[in-house]
Amino acid sequence: MLAHIGCDVHFLMRSDLAAVRERGLLINTKGERVHVAAKAYADTAEIGPCDLVLIAIKATANAMLDQAIPPLLHEKTALVTLQNGLGNEEYLAKRWGAERVLGGLCFVCLNRIGPGEIAHLDHGTISLGEFGRGRSERLQRLVDALGAAQIEAKAVPDLVAERWRKLVWNVPFNGLSIAANATVADVLADPVLRSEARGLMSDVLAGARALGHEISDAFADHQIERSFSMGPYRPSSMIDWQEGRPVEVEAIWGETLRQGLAAGAAMPRLALLYALLRRLTELNLSTKS
Amino acid sequence: MLAHIGCDVHFLMRSDLAAVRERGLLINTKGERVHVAAKAYADTAEIGPCDLVLIAIKATANAMLDQAIPPLLHEKTALVTLQNGLGNEEYLAKRWGAERVLGGLCFVCLNRIGPGEIAHLDHGTISLGEFGRGRSERLQRLVDALGAAQIEAKAVPDLVAERWRKLVWNVPFNGLSIAANATVADVLADPVLRSEARGLMSDVLAGARALGHEISDAFADHQIERSFSMGPYRPSSMIDWQEGRPVEVEAIWGETLRQGLAAGAAMPRLALLYALLRRLTELNLSTKS
Repeated sequence: MLAHIGCDVHFLMRSDLAAVRERGLLINTKGERVHVAAKAYADTAEIGPCDLVLIAIKATANAMLDQAIPPLLHEKTALVTLQNGLGNEEYLAKRWGAERVLGGLCFVCLNRIGPGEIAHLDHGTISLGEFGRGRSERLQRLVDALGAAQIEAKAVPDLVAERWRKLVWNVPFNGLSIAANATVADVLADPVLRSEARGLMSDVLAGARALGHEISDAFADHQIERSFSMGPYRPSSMIDWQEGRPVEVEAIWGETLRQGLAAGAAMPRLALLYALLRRLTELNLSTKS
Repeated sequence: MLAHIGCDVHFLMRSDLAAVRERGLLINTKGERVHVAAKAYADTAEIGPCDLVLIAIKATANAMLDQAIPPLLHEKTALVTLQNGLGNEEYLAKRWGAERVLGGLCFVCLNRIGPGEIAHLDHGTISLGEFGRGRSERLQRLVDALGAAQIEAKAVPDLVAERWRKLVWNVPFNGLSIAANATVADVLADPVLRSEARGLMSDVLAGARALGHEISDAFADHQIERSFSMGPYRPSSMIDWQEGRPVEVEAIWGETLRQGLAAGAAMPRLALLYALLRRLTELNLSTKS
């Protein structure tokens, strides 16, 4: 959408490179079709230094950043991770300096439905924050740019708290999509499963609170309510699982559990869910390979 | 084994009837092969009144007892359920009188591996008790008969407490065999999964204790330890699941959860596991049918 309004955007592509070079990017956003003649590259060395890097790969592929990031850096390059779960800002900060790092949370239902083709199904806000710092001028410029591109974005004062707020949704719905083989609609339609989704949210709240991030019970209740409009949405983890790709088990469930337990929280449902997902995804990869 | 030592045993058979009439029963018990020329029937009306009825069908098929039991009854007929989980004694007591009912717990690894063919893999004790009463003379006669047939059996003073002790094993190992697609060896080999198996045992202990049945932590630890000799054993629920048959979800997990919660216990891992098994088994049946 930034490219669509004329920003100078360069896309690092992997499996979709040829399709995007040929046909551009196609975004189906709630009935509207947006076509973007994207500048696509196979290697960041062809792109060179940028002011801003938006990182949207799966956390399971973070090791590829070790090669991909350095060619993009000048002295002031900012790195924004839009990835799910915990630990991604730390990954970037450790290698290229904490002062470069921002993070964003995408509250959005979208699926990649084919090479270079994206279906945007529901919701669509992005919360952005500096890593370990309050709001900044560059953060506000990014929020403004996204707003100009018709993407609802806001700056948040505490990125880590915001990550935990997002986990309140991802932990149950992404997790049950695999462990219970259930879309969002399937979880909501089964009162026993829906109650367990809310129970998993309580575990995440317990972890967040033990770490000093106050998230209300009402926020969790609202995460259930706001999900009804999603229908039979398949969270990205479910699609990864069904297609035999790696699932972000450590970023979404493992790190959340470890950080919560270390702070003294009890998270029994999350502990069981994590053990199941760890086992099931390992089994899935070994079966498909 | 009772028939093998000359007791007058009559077998009600379903899918194995023709095979057993032709070839008898074959029991492979730890290297030894026992052949029993079993008297097999398609209908209990052909059998007629008995002194003792041993009930070994799945709890999911209990409705068939409504037709099958009455022809077997004389005034003193005893009904012994060897089924898993909670609620089976109650089912019998409600229909044919509590005074007839006994229950037995089979601590044994065995699988039906073909028509009329049973593989006995490990362990093999049976704990028997009267339903809602202490030890009795008929209970002792049954224990003695099983002992004479080389089956290690013992009379227990509190059948319900014994059922909860058995659930300490069945809840985690039968449950994870489906939810984690894991044999006993798979659960034990994965430290995260093994720890969750122990966590599920703690939930069962909490339920048992809330109901007044004191079971020690050491008993649960021992249930983990004694399982190592089972190797890649598939609990019966796993086989039912893999073959698309009904699983005893309510008897093993649902009733255990409901009774524990009603007595005030917290059982968060069991609650999640039950929700998953309920969903997965429903999905499995609708897929296979």
